[in-house]
Amino acid sequence: MDLKEYLKQKCQLVDQALERYLPDAKELPASLHSAMRYSVFAGGKRVRPVLMLAACEAVGGSADAVMPAACAMEMIHTYSLIHDDLPAMDNDDFRRGNPTNHKVYGEATAILAGDALLTEAFILLSNGTGGDPAARLRVIQEIAVASGSRGMVGGQVVDMESEGRHDVDIATLSYIHTHKTGALIRASVRCGAILGGASEEQFKSLTRYADAIGLAFQIADDILDVEGTTEELGKDAGSDQARGKATYPALMGLEASKARAHELVEIALDALASFDERAEPLRAIASYIVKRKS
Amino acid sequence: MDLKEYLKQKCQLVDQALERYLPDAKELPASLHSAMRYSVFAGGKRVRPVLMLAACEAVGGSADAVMPAACAMEMIHTYSLIHDDLPAMDNDDFRRGNPTNHKVYGEATAILAGDALLTEAFILLSNGTGGDPAARLRVIQEIAVASGSRGMVGGQVVDMESEGRHDVDIATLSYIHTHKTGALIRASVRCGAILGGASEEQFKSLTRYADAIGLAFQIADDILDVEGTTEELGKDAGSDQARGKATYPALMGLEASKARAHELVEIALDALASFDERAEPLRAIASYIVKRKS
Repeated sequence: MDLKEYLKQKCQLVDQALERYLPDAKELPASLHSAMRYSVFAGGKRVRPVLMLAACEAVGGSADAVMPAACAMEMIHTYSLIHDDLPAMDNDDFRRGNPTNHKVYGEATAILAGDALLTEAFILLSNGTGGDPAARLRVIQEIAVASGSRGMVGGQVVDMESEGRHDVDIATLSYIHTHKTGALIRASVRCGAILGGASEEQFKSLTRYADAIGLAFQIADDILDVEGTTEELGKDAGSDQARGKATYPALMGLEASKARAHELVEIALDALASFDERAEPLRAIASYIVKRKS
Repeated sequence: MDLKEYLKQKCQLVDQALERYLPDAKELPASLHSAMRYSVFAGGKRVRPVLMLAACEAVGGSADAVMPAACAMEMIHTYSLIHDDLPAMDNDDFRRGNPTNHKVYGEATAILAGDALLTEAFILLSNGTGGDPAARLRVIQEIAVASGSRGMVGGQVVDMESEGRHDVDIATLSYIHTHKTGALIRASVRCGAILGGASEEQFKSLTRYADAIGLAFQIADDILDVEGTTEELGKDAGSDQARGKATYPALMGLEASKARAHELVEIALDALASFDERAEPLRAIASYIVKRKS
């Protein structure tokens, strides 16, 4: 299959849906709604929504059933980036080559735009009457748990507390990754499965797939930070090292990290063994993780 | 009825439930969970949960059905206070006589504790299997809309943008209040009604009640800032004026503000005219708003 074309098509669908779901930039308070849209449409690769769509497809579900949840996930991912970039956190001036939210709208509005995007996700998840209410509650639960103190936010706290420390071990690094980035990836795949009507067996297999690619994705990111160029990445290459951040290459070496990433991709593909050709996009995404350059 | 005793009992129930629902302070990341608990248990009056319980009671519902949503509402209220107090926002060092969250835990953890409390609210609202799923989705929708860019966060942005300006009119001040504080009060009462099984008629009356007391509460707050003492308020009296904040007393005079607050309490009581004695707590709360000293 042509993954590039698949990703392009799905990204367009997600972008169109986000355009519809988000309040208009002119709606009052315009500063807030502009700030929300600024970061949502700042060139994100829509990894999580595409994973949700692909997981839903893999079990025979329709894209329509999953689009609100897919966009909610992207809003949560975006809010987390806005807050991570704040002066009190990572203090980043640029993201994907563009000025960060607080550099454009000011710190207060950036905090509130993040808050509003997180909230908007739950507005979207609970909106309207489509779909089985019990399944929708389960999806809200998945996404909320993955985003909260036992998920993404917890990972961000441990990441922050680990920065500049030289005693960070693999267990802590693994905690950071499974929580900070892994939790939303897992929830994306699982929600796609739930809304696509997956069997219990399929749900478990897809969870295994998600956990493997989530970690592979993060290790690949760490490797890219070492090997990529600033131009390719749209951010400073080598920034992890400059910050004294614990990374897989730093803790287990570059070659062992690459081997681990490849191994995880194999685990992900293995988890999909019993799925038919409708899981091809998920397979292609797993393989792509260790090949990408940015 | 003895409102003081009623409030005390309900506050205790809410506190016990919050204690159960929130992750333990020792659970990792401990800094995050401690920070979340610090602000939740910093002496809040539990106005919103009590209103939800009382509204549920007024239509014959049980406290059990509404406690998770009541606690979720308090978590959202608490997150909003933590973020409002941040240096980039109101830059407050004290709240209710205690150091604010970022003064104790640092700015980064305070931002994340706020994020996690907002998320925890939706974990709680979507948790377990109790109750009719469709009603629970409706409650999530109510609370999310009230908290988001068209509700509380929107009000906070306009409030922030109005600070220090001398051209703030009654329409803008009313926007700020109906959004920044009114939206959560309205949602509290409405969710109590939904979960208590209110009729459409009762739901409309309770909405009218909520809108009236929400605004009365805010006008009374503005009046207290002028007339109260720092000791009574647990914060600096006259702080609104010192900041150049638009208030009802500043815009329409102290006496007219008092008259308006009393008028709104009458409207609230009138909205409850067709309710039986189970609405006594709601009636007593409305009357109390214009009598309180802090």
